[in-house]
Amino acid sequence: MNETIKSQLNHRTIRKFTDQKIDPDTLKTLLEVANMGPSSSGMQKCSIIRVTDQGEKEAFAKIGKQDYMADATELFIFIIDCHRNYQIASEEKEENQEMKGFDKFFEGLCDCIIASQNLVVAAESLGLGTNYFGNINNDPQQVIDLLKLPKLTYPAIGLGIGYPGQSPQLKPRLPLEAKVFENTYQDFSSYHDLLKDYDEIMKTYYDLRDTNKKTETFTSSVINKEAHKTPLGKGMYQALLAQGFLPDI
Amino acid sequence: MNETIKSQLNHRTIRKFTDQKIDPDTLKTLLEVANMGPSSSGMQKCSIIRVTDQGEKEAFAKIGKQDYMADATELFIFIIDCHRNYQIASEEKEENQEMKGFDKFFEGLCDCIIASQNLVVAAESLGLGTNYFGNINNDPQQVIDLLKLPKLTYPAIGLGIGYPGQSPQLKPRLPLEAKVFENTYQDFSSYHDLLKDYDEIMKTYYDLRDTNKKTETFTSSVINKEAHKTPLGKGMYQALLAQGFLPDI
Repeated sequence: MNETIKSQLNHRTIRKFTDQKIDPDTLKTLLEVANMGPSSSGMQKCSIIRVTDQGEKEAFAKIGKQDYMADATELFIFIIDCHRNYQIASEEKEENQEMKGFDKFFEGLCDCIIASQNLVVAAESLGLGTNYFGNINNDPQQVIDLLKLPKLTYPAIGLGIGYPGQSPQLKPRLPLEAKVFENTYQDFSSYHDLLKDYDEIMKTYYDLRDTNKKTETFTSSVINKEAHKTPLGKGMYQALLAQGFLPDI
Repeated sequence: MNETIKSQLNHRTIRKFTDQKIDPDTLKTLLEVANMGPSSSGMQKCSIIRVTDQGEKEAFAKIGKQDYMADATELFIFIIDCHRNYQIASEEKEENQEMKGFDKFFEGLCDCIIASQNLVVAAESLGLGTNYFGNINNDPQQVIDLLKLPKLTYPAIGLGIGYPGQSPQLKPRLPLEAKVFENTYQDFSSYHDLLKDYDEIMKTYYDLRDTNKKTETFTSSVINKEAHKTPLGKGMYQALLAQGFLPDI
């Protein structure tokens, strides 16, 4: 167990930051760490947009329906970028339809999340706090317009960074036995017994935490968040098509 | 600059491992780090399959068309898992079609790559080497059959881990100015000038590296890998539909 792993096991989402700015050298180092992450076939299909305009941050907070998004000290949007390589190939008259396939979109998303999580670990190792914003995909088309994204790009995820202005409790995870299997997928015919202890742990966690206390277990949160809640990301596949990706080729 | 960041900036893909095994406590720690990564709305739509069966490893090497995949000391396959929560909701008679949407698939892929990259950083901090295998999606249906994946799951990425048996050169990345923008996407009308230096750097890298020397620049590798090479991941979208995801709802 070293400092890196200690910091990783201590991860929690930070939704409130202090006023302290992040100095430009630190910011540059974090972006270099994002850039040094592995990428699919070395094709680097990720771009990053740093949102510094306060009006734009507020627009994001509206799309994401999370006010605190506007208060993130730094806000980065990671972009699946198949446009750059398409353009590079075009200049040599070598582009083709296959550069627009679903596999390329999928690889671009992997590149983006590898870069963002690399940045998260680096930031946390420096005492910074982070907050992913998957909620940018509540309305991908609006994000595409806001960021002026060209064809063959797509918003992957947002990330807020700053110095922590809160110290939330660690959020317990499903036990490894529920998610790590050997050689083949282990299909539990029922999760009732497996989740009994974890549901209790989560009930205590929700009940005792400092902010947003509620009566909830993992099971009830799955129902509330994934089944009952009207999904906001309904336009994602349509936006993907509108951006020129061709899943079916 | 601390040890975490130093290690991250020193990342390189390791394709050859020594015979040294990874002890079970270390392995457990690495999986716990994967498990502690952030996940979309806390829904934890990632499972991990540890491949220990040598025959199965060889089957993966065949699918991936990379012999060394069979020699990875540890081989993990990260699985987009929307099945678990669907099943949990079903037991309460609360499941619905929206739990099969493209947004859920996308969130599951983000969860998987956050977990895998968290594991990569932890492993490298301990002196281990890693190798992503995106090539499992050369033939997703075969992987689904091999791992006996139920509906609403999908293979995200493979990851090999072991003690490094090689010490490859650092692979230079595109300069930050080509991929980090402010407030809106920066669409270069031409990449020729921007890539001139980087193409030279990559030419020297390919020419001087110890293994698999070739005459290549970034521009030529984009053309060779993304435009000319017959894509192997063509069945990805079809496999997604066959696994029961409903992108269009």
